[in-house]
Amino acid sequence: MTEQAGQVIFTRGGQAESIHRVHVAVVDRSGRVVARCGDPALVTFPRSSSKPVQALPLALSEPELPGDELALACASHAGTKEHLAVAERLLARSGSTLGDLRCGTHPPFDPAAAADLIRRGEAPTPLHHNCSGKHAGMLLACLRNGWPREGYTEPEHPLQVRIRELHAELGGVPLDDVRGGTDGCSVPAFALPLHGAARIFARLAAPTGTLAPALERVFRAMTAHPFLIAGPGRLDTTLMPLVPGLAAKMGAEAFYGMALRQTPHGPLGVAFKVQDGGERARPHVALAVLAALGGPVTEELRALAPRVLHNWAGREVGTVEVEVPLKWA
Amino acid sequence: MTEQAGQVIFTRGGQAESIHRVHVAVVDRSGRVVARCGDPALVTFPRSSSKPVQALPLALSEPELPGDELALACASHAGTKEHLAVAERLLARSGSTLGDLRCGTHPPFDPAAAADLIRRGEAPTPLHHNCSGKHAGMLLACLRNGWPREGYTEPEHPLQVRIRELHAELGGVPLDDVRGGTDGCSVPAFALPLHGAARIFARLAAPTGTLAPALERVFRAMTAHPFLIAGPGRLDTTLMPLVPGLAAKMGAEAFYGMALRQTPHGPLGVAFKVQDGGERARPHVALAVLAALGGPVTEELRALAPRVLHNWAGREVGTVEVEVPLKWA
Repeated sequence: MTEQAGQVIFTRGGQAESIHRVHVAVVDRSGRVVARCGDPALVTFPRSSSKPVQALPLALSEPELPGDELALACASHAGTKEHLAVAERLLARSGSTLGDLRCGTHPPFDPAAAADLIRRGEAPTPLHHNCSGKHAGMLLACLRNGWPREGYTEPEHPLQVRIRELHAELGGVPLDDVRGGTDGCSVPAFALPLHGAARIFARLAAPTGTLAPALERVFRAMTAHPFLIAGPGRLDTTLMPLVPGLAAKMGAEAFYGMALRQTPHGPLGVAFKVQDGGERARPHVALAVLAALGGPVTEELRALAPRVLHNWAGREVGTVEVEVPLKWA
Repeated sequence: MTEQAGQVIFTRGGQAESIHRVHVAVVDRSGRVVARCGDPALVTFPRSSSKPVQALPLALSEPELPGDELALACASHAGTKEHLAVAERLLARSGSTLGDLRCGTHPPFDPAAAADLIRRGEAPTPLHHNCSGKHAGMLLACLRNGWPREGYTEPEHPLQVRIRELHAELGGVPLDDVRGGTDGCSVPAFALPLHGAARIFARLAAPTGTLAPALERVFRAMTAHPFLIAGPGRLDTTLMPLVPGLAAKMGAEAFYGMALRQTPHGPLGVAFKVQDGGERARPHVALAVLAALGGPVTEELRALAPRVLHNWAGREVGTVEVEVPLKWA
């Protein structure tokens, strides 16, 4: 890594307390890296920011799927009633049941939904898992493609083989450079250079080639259903309605992908990673990048990444300083 | 910063995913920095790792205080019934009430205690705040010293002025180098170089001078009541019983302080900071430092910082690689 990483600095009493390092890649419709901060070749895992790619076999094989169900297949949802209702509908479409889901179980991300479960004395089910929509969508893609439901999460399953190829194809990197790991929900997670992930989002921003109709369906589903993509107060949900032509997707460990259709530089794909996985830095980096790419930074946008920090008693205790300068190619 | 920082690397599928940078200072009983990793002069906030110092005015003025109450004054407690009972007793000792506490309110850190409140439909009170013991102890210290209860959290209050002086005195740094901020519970948080914080813990490990009896009471209270210092499954609570002669205290934003009485190098004070505030790196760094200082690393200790990572479905997904080499002076 030759370039200086960006930084998001949490201060207290005018003194730096904690510092997050950040790497950013911005790619145009031709696939060229046009701007960067830090190391655009950093190899890392998009994690759930891969969901728009993971939903492509579904979008290709089920072109008439309702937009809300396709959105939920791209989501890291918060487990509210609205999310569960769509997940159930998508799961039923392939004749699958809860027992077919291999995502595992965790309490809903939404604190109100989690508290509600506790009050009712109920345990969470695999449907509450933030990836249940992706998994339900994968089961349907298997059915439509004539692939076995059995083993749909395994790296050698035709669905996962295809998803890995799509990462290479859309990311513009050799297949051998798409390295496999296992995600939190047990499907393969693929690592690739940051510029490759940005290229995937550039393709969502400006679909071309044989995949264009499916990419377009995914883009439209995500932007039409920002609530389903994440949930109450979560960044994708709050950011997308404020930025025209933006499809955005969070990934675990503070990854972020943005497909921007309307910038002064034309359609762009953005990917960034907070090196330490610190999720709290993400909204600050997202806003800094949007501003650097020429977007208007409104009060509503600024409210998504407050620069003044308060304590439990509501007193001001510090600030957030954002140093994420984009270097243009 | 001239030295390479330590690193705690979270991997996935054999590939680095997220990286935490770490700075460590180790000080002997004479106050000398004997070992380090990264920058021992890093200026940062010990946050709740300052609680043993913040409890000294109490330990000095109320020498007969029961050990469990002194321990809770040093604690970042998890808000279980056991913690609340001691907090109530300490609060009552100065004739204070809930309304006198200025710490603010947050749900109990202990998930079971938090769920219990939700089930009962009750809101948390200031007593559930992890710092309520510290605040109750401060109110008692004010009473015993003839200081007003009013304004006890403010930087100009005699109690807070004294606590700042104690940071300089025990930390071996000029008073001007002890910089003030506001903590999560509204009392002053003081920043000082990492070696200063390590010196404070070295003084706890080997008390000398006029403060020795109070330092000894604090050390004994902490080590006699590890559960009260933190709570179920939390590092201070689980680590102290496994390391003879260790008083350890977590601080927010991944700070850690350890007073070690029994090492091959004599009594030592340790302070470290995970640069980005990533709390998950802390147990790994603590174990690496304990091992480097000559402590036996038992299976029980290793279990506090598992090196293999599992996902929601229980599958292995990655490892934790710890590179925190101590450089000896």
